[in-house]
Amino acid sequence: MAMAFARSPSSAAQDQPARRSARLEHPLRLFRGSVIEQPVVAYETWGQLNAARDNAVLLFTGLSPSAHAASSSADPKPGWWESMIGEGRPIDTSRYFVVCVNSLGSPFGSSSPASMEPRTGRPYGISFPEIAVEDIAVAGREVLRTLGIERIAAVIGPSLGGMTVLAYCALFPGEVDSLVTISGAARANPFAIALRSLQRELVRSDPAWRGGNYEPGRGPRLGLRLARKLGTITYRSADEWDQRFGRRRVPETAGISGDFRPQFEVEAYLEHQAQRFADQFDANAYLYLSRAMDQFDLADHGGGSLAAAFAKFGVRRALVLGVESDMLFPVEQQREIADQLRAAGRAAVEFHAFPSLQGHDAFLVDLARFEPALGNFLRA
Amino acid sequence: MAMAFARSPSSAAQDQPARRSARLEHPLRLFRGSVIEQPVVAYETWGQLNAARDNAVLLFTGLSPSAHAASSSADPKPGWWESMIGEGRPIDTSRYFVVCVNSLGSPFGSSSPASMEPRTGRPYGISFPEIAVEDIAVAGREVLRTLGIERIAAVIGPSLGGMTVLAYCALFPGEVDSLVTISGAARANPFAIALRSLQRELVRSDPAWRGGNYEPGRGPRLGLRLARKLGTITYRSADEWDQRFGRRRVPETAGISGDFRPQFEVEAYLEHQAQRFADQFDANAYLYLSRAMDQFDLADHGGGSLAAAFAKFGVRRALVLGVESDMLFPVEQQREIADQLRAAGRAAVEFHAFPSLQGHDAFLVDLARFEPALGNFLRA
Repeated sequence: MAMAFARSPSSAAQDQPARRSARLEHPLRLFRGSVIEQPVVAYETWGQLNAARDNAVLLFTGLSPSAHAASSSADPKPGWWESMIGEGRPIDTSRYFVVCVNSLGSPFGSSSPASMEPRTGRPYGISFPEIAVEDIAVAGREVLRTLGIERIAAVIGPSLGGMTVLAYCALFPGEVDSLVTISGAARANPFAIALRSLQRELVRSDPAWRGGNYEPGRGPRLGLRLARKLGTITYRSADEWDQRFGRRRVPETAGISGDFRPQFEVEAYLEHQAQRFADQFDANAYLYLSRAMDQFDLADHGGGSLAAAFAKFGVRRALVLGVESDMLFPVEQQREIADQLRAAGRAAVEFHAFPSLQGHDAFLVDLARFEPALGNFLRA
Repeated sequence: MAMAFARSPSSAAQDQPARRSARLEHPLRLFRGSVIEQPVVAYETWGQLNAARDNAVLLFTGLSPSAHAASSSADPKPGWWESMIGEGRPIDTSRYFVVCVNSLGSPFGSSSPASMEPRTGRPYGISFPEIAVEDIAVAGREVLRTLGIERIAAVIGPSLGGMTVLAYCALFPGEVDSLVTISGAARANPFAIALRSLQRELVRSDPAWRGGNYEPGRGPRLGLRLARKLGTITYRSADEWDQRFGRRRVPETAGISGDFRPQFEVEAYLEHQAQRFADQFDANAYLYLSRAMDQFDLADHGGGSLAAAFAKFGVRRALVLGVESDMLFPVEQQREIADQLRAAGRAAVEFHAFPSLQGHDAFLVDLARFEPALGNFLRA
């Protein structure tokens, strides 16, 4: 598939000066059968591609972030993994050419329910085709093709990004030297499915969702806020909150009325996180990515067998990181990935189960553990 | 406080033939300062009060159930703890006179937001005064007074009922021989507060809540359904659902349309549980009881010190039961109760942390562990 690439022409381009957009020349055939006619994939890069074109590191994200993983001269705003990427940092840009892609289906520049449908000139909305984790992987690979990269040094991803890493290695087994999954999963467990199903129902239950046909900027903000509160509750751990908030109360706030007003600091924290997310994210995009996480099953690439799917992987080395307090992508699922990779017998597998307090979000917070693990692996 | 008691005259009385109602003759002064003018407390009993009036067991419930803990000749429907109460059962009615009270604030016969305000002849709704866990304890004691009971053999409660047991023993230290708390807490942790706060927001966000002023039978059913789904997710454990549901899908259902229809068995299970609850429970009563659980802090009875509060207890024996997979009332909180009781030095304390898979709900399900523990304790 041949493609051109260009600076994004979207209205948000000025706010995202480092964002580039890969515009695929041909329609993108999706894993569950539909097609995106004029697909676009947003990404950012750091460092330089070497002459051999073999020093690329491809980074997939969790559900929420954009491709702005770190600052650069073009965009000095700190990224979502700022301390992890740069010269002398764990993902060392003096050695690696780093490409972070905005997931297909995410509203930060890639084709998504929030982007314009070429035929109508209006946002796709709910008419956007169903996205699978595999499609996010394919879209990332297409970005690399536009950059003239055929084989990558490493593919890295946390959370949804960890699922995407596994999909990538199953789909393109000969093209990856090393893989890094962080708090990912070969497939979601029913507890995580239940939580995400309820989050989607919170969005869909907001009358402003209008069956998915809301006007841009007039979406189900309430539903998205409530869904994010539930997300935030599951991204951390009870022990962390005991230490951070305890049962401390916020000062009485004149602006909040009624007998059921928030009283505890933890409630104010949830509200802040939820508002921030609802300010940024598109509700339909949230539904699409959330559903993709539930539907993903790596065993689909092994005729129903996880072992057969992992046996396809061609990676030479693997780093699997998980967190003991993660309730959403529990550490047993990280151990399963490591065990399956070892059983497949091709890769040298390094596995760490960190005792971080911060649950699923630890990779963003407990950098004292994650930075050396990732840095040592990539330096080796 | 003198009282009369009578069969409940409510329209639901025919459905609850074993339910009795204690009608307090005087207004009930509440822990947080308000008053209920003509308080009623619903309850059921099993077994016979002995001549010495010293064989009573007082049972408090979790948030959801009524006083119908077990069947009887008057009402053969199975109760919520059917196998636990009866002749030869762990709470043996050939020895004990068992009284289960419907919590003050609950809609199953006790004064609550759903009951009639005597002055207006209409449901209290949101004008019902704030209920504390302590008020539930006081209301239970008033029932015993109407029955001529001044000292009890044991006070028992799971979940909210476990909190109520602790409040009871702090308020009436000389009146209890033995206490049993099951998956309770001396005070909620911020994780449980966050979950309940969000559940309340789901109810309050339903336009049908109307600021609490909905007509009887026309309340926020959607909000209550969503809140109960979240509750159900937290009442069990991820490991149990792995075993029960895995990633099995429900057969395609013609009646359910749309691209985000439930697909996994766990989603159908949540829906079933949520519907059942929304059919039975009053939304405002739910808000009141949920808030009471967040606000409860046993340290309020010790000038801010938990140790000082536990030092007030006059019980001779204590049984503390918890479950390792309980995410809502974690096992550390059960250990804290046991440790505090031991540190207070008066009671013989027995503590079990069960490895049940069923999380907070284990006391309703893992009866192979809970029945012998309770039976042995009460026989001793």
